[in-house]
Amino acid sequence: MTRYRTLSPPDLRVYLGAHDALGARLGGPHEGWAVREVSDGNLNHVFIVEGPAGAVCCKQSLPHVRVDPDWKMPLTRTDFEARYMRRVAPHVGHLMPALLHFDPDLHLIVMESLHHHHVLRGMLGEATALAGFSARIGEYVAQTAFFTSWRGRPFEQSMADCAAFAGNTTLTRITVDLVLTDPYRAACARNHWMTPELDATVAELQTDAALHASVSHWQERFLGAPQALLHGDLHTGSIMLHGDDVRVIDGEFALMGPIGFDAGLYVGNLLLHAAARRDHATWMADEIETFWRSFTHEYRALWETNPTSGDVGALLDAAGRHQAQAQELAMVMRDLAGFAGMEMIRRTIGYAQVSDYALCSDRTGEKEARLRALTLGRMLITRGRRIETINALLETIEEPGGF
Amino acid sequence: MTRYRTLSPPDLRVYLGAHDALGARLGGPHEGWAVREVSDGNLNHVFIVEGPAGAVCCKQSLPHVRVDPDWKMPLTRTDFEARYMRRVAPHVGHLMPALLHFDPDLHLIVMESLHHHHVLRGMLGEATALAGFSARIGEYVAQTAFFTSWRGRPFEQSMADCAAFAGNTTLTRITVDLVLTDPYRAACARNHWMTPELDATVAELQTDAALHASVSHWQERFLGAPQALLHGDLHTGSIMLHGDDVRVIDGEFALMGPIGFDAGLYVGNLLLHAAARRDHATWMADEIETFWRSFTHEYRALWETNPTSGDVGALLDAAGRHQAQAQELAMVMRDLAGFAGMEMIRRTIGYAQVSDYALCSDRTGEKEARLRALTLGRMLITRGRRIETINALLETIEEPGGF
Ligand SMILES: Nc1ncnc2c1ncn2[C@@H]1O[C@H](COP(=O)(O)OP(=O)(O)OP(=O)(O)O)[C@@H](O)[C@H]1O
Ligand SMILES: Nc1ncnc2c1ncn2[C@@H]1O[C@H](COP(=O)(O)OP(=O)(O)OP(=O)(O)O)[C@@H](O)[C@H]1O
Repeated sequence: MTRYRTLSPPDLRVYLGAHDALGARLGGPHEGWAVREVSDGNLNHVFIVEGPAGAVCCKQSLPHVRVDPDWKMPLTRTDFEARYMRRVAPHVGHLMPALLHFDPDLHLIVMESLHHHHVLRGMLGEATALAGFSARIGEYVAQTAFFTSWRGRPFEQSMADCAAFAGNTTLTRITVDLVLTDPYRAACARNHWMTPELDATVAELQTDAALHASVSHWQERFLGAPQALLHGDLHTGSIMLHGDDVRVIDGEFALMGPIGFDAGLYVGNLLLHAAARRDHATWMADEIETFWRSFTHEYRALWETNPTSGDVGALLDAAGRHQAQAQELAMVMRDLAGFAGMEMIRRTIGYAQVSDYALCSDRTGEKEARLRALTLGRMLITRGRRIETINALLETIEEPGGF
Repeated sequence: MTRYRTLSPPDLRVYLGAHDALGARLGGPHEGWAVREVSDGNLNHVFIVEGPAGAVCCKQSLPHVRVDPDWKMPLTRTDFEARYMRRVAPHVGHLMPALLHFDPDLHLIVMESLHHHHVLRGMLGEATALAGFSARIGEYVAQTAFFTSWRGRPFEQSMADCAAFAGNTTLTRITVDLVLTDPYRAACARNHWMTPELDATVAELQTDAALHASVSHWQERFLGAPQALLHGDLHTGSIMLHGDDVRVIDGEFALMGPIGFDAGLYVGNLLLHAAARRDHATWMADEIETFWRSFTHEYRALWETNPTSGDVGALLDAAGRHQAQAQELAMVMRDLAGFAGMEMIRRTIGYAQVSDYALCSDRTGEKEARLRALTLGRMLITRGRRIETINALLETIEEPGGF
């Protein structure tokens, strides 16, 4: 018999009160704790619980998609999130909320509350995010990727993660369908778009065989190139900021995959914001450059400091290592470009779109923003395999036909 | 408490007699059955049991390497072999012995006995193998690879194999060390070679930084490109022939990896034979060409017949599919070339060498054969990334500097 039940606020108080370490963190009797629901994602229940001494954040899986009770979904998604947090925390503990407790029966995560932080996506809209936050995300991707890669650790450890996260098929299926396939299928009822304004462009995306050949390449990269343990959903809604304190949340999509997938989703979301807010385009380009410089700097540095931690590349001397670094970073950039493009398309005409478009002043502005995103997204998908440097990426972004 | 014990011939008779279906296959009372040990590999016990009605072949893991009792090894290796046989039998049942029974406690496989067959490696030496056997191996690789690839089935099924075979770390560690790393390490005591004849060449292989950069690339391909479920050890000692009946045995190294690894080990072993037996060089080149034509023909045909069985590539139309096929086959050829080269080196100076060299008429002949293999192996390793067609491969093989 499973102990699972969806916890109501009173249940949650009792549960936390019964766990000494959690109760102590909140302080005083549990009856007095304030419970506030903050769920704004699609999938799970999230509550902030506050007591006189402090606060915690509780995230629990529901047996269905939160915003669509008819879409049934296994409860194990928070299990993968907790496992991901445990795996990467040793390397990026300062860039995530601390995991305080995980209950595998209730599928409940209790973590450090970031109640002074705000979600990056919202802060971009209000222009309250402190410029340069992308340096931290570059570090985050470098550290999580390097230490979970074939060169960062003995292959047996990576195989253990391959095995563990290969089980995360429910959420991986969402990525395979919603990100990598559905938007290009006319018959898919989950797509929706501004009509009639985008009709012609969408019809083109769904019938262009050359585009589909490139999409097919990115599908294969996503599934067939497990370079490192990925966050799997690193968009601007999975990042919280408070001043220069940057945290990554919501790792439930974690799987072994190409490093450029995490990087590409992140960059794709900065570009989506730039599409909606033209006055932020230069800022977003700067963030992309900052992200890449920080990521590459850190990734090279980790590799230099740990030249023989893994099986792959253990034979290389310094020159061989530098050459391998250049090749690997070019590969990450190619993947970044392609997946950024895929993200831009799916967030503009697919099932789960970005709220950035609500920032547009009127319908014409929104139409133009969405068309910009679709044009650039398509360019990145088809040309990505030839984009190997940050300059090539920035030039593509700034191209007249593009942005 | 585990029921495991190493079975002696009398134990084996009793065990088989207690299983109705197996006993019936052998016929008569178990006391009369003949048990013959045929182990000639490095790792396991293999027995043929014959009764009046028929025969079976029994393979059991030992708690150590058969030929080196000090090298302890987990018993689960036959578990992976049985799992591999079950997975691929629906596609290549006619090319493997039938799996009759698996006992997970005894780590015992009971399979169809191929007592009329002989191991290909030996038949090459005696020139008794019927030319053209490689067509069957081409089919074998095409069918096992396609149906276990991301385009041959829904990704959830591939993830299940990723998870299951990620556990095969003991044997994968052998590949990572013995095939992909040790031969290039001067400090590795498991290497051995004809000395002093090969000393200078071996020293070069172990200090050439450019070579090590290429080796590092193949290491990464092996671990980081799980395209399909591989046999993992597809050499001429893992293939048995009887007339034109060809069977693949010994899948205990199975893992998800690049298709070109299976293909490359096979081709590498044909080339090792050609190095030892110059009078068989044209024959071996023909077998390589036959293998490749059969593999590519069959792989394309399966893809054409099953264009949307998997998630990857499901959007492609016929033209896109043909283009993707050409790209994928070029990738398999690159990997084939590189891994063939790695196999040639390791089987000449590494821990487990090939018996083909015993076919050389004298020490000078053997020295020349081994040097030929080392020269060609090195060329394939460093140039493999540019070898994309069968003609490019055959030209490299026939180059004066090479062969
Ligand atoms: N540790 C935390 N501290 C404070 N607030 C948090 C914390 N974690 C999440 N939140 C809030 O809860 C919201 C939902 O969290 P999260 O994105 O993890 O949920 P989700 O349902 O998995 O979302 P998605 O559908 O995007 O996957 C966040 O947008 C954020 O506002
Ligand atoms: N089904 C079979 N029928 C008849 N003989 C067989 C059969 N399977 C294996 N053999 C014989 O047993 C020998 C050893 O089998 P196999 O190669 O599977 O063992 P192994 O110990 O795993 O070898 P390796 O060290 O190469 O991995 C084969 O070379 C072959 O001669």
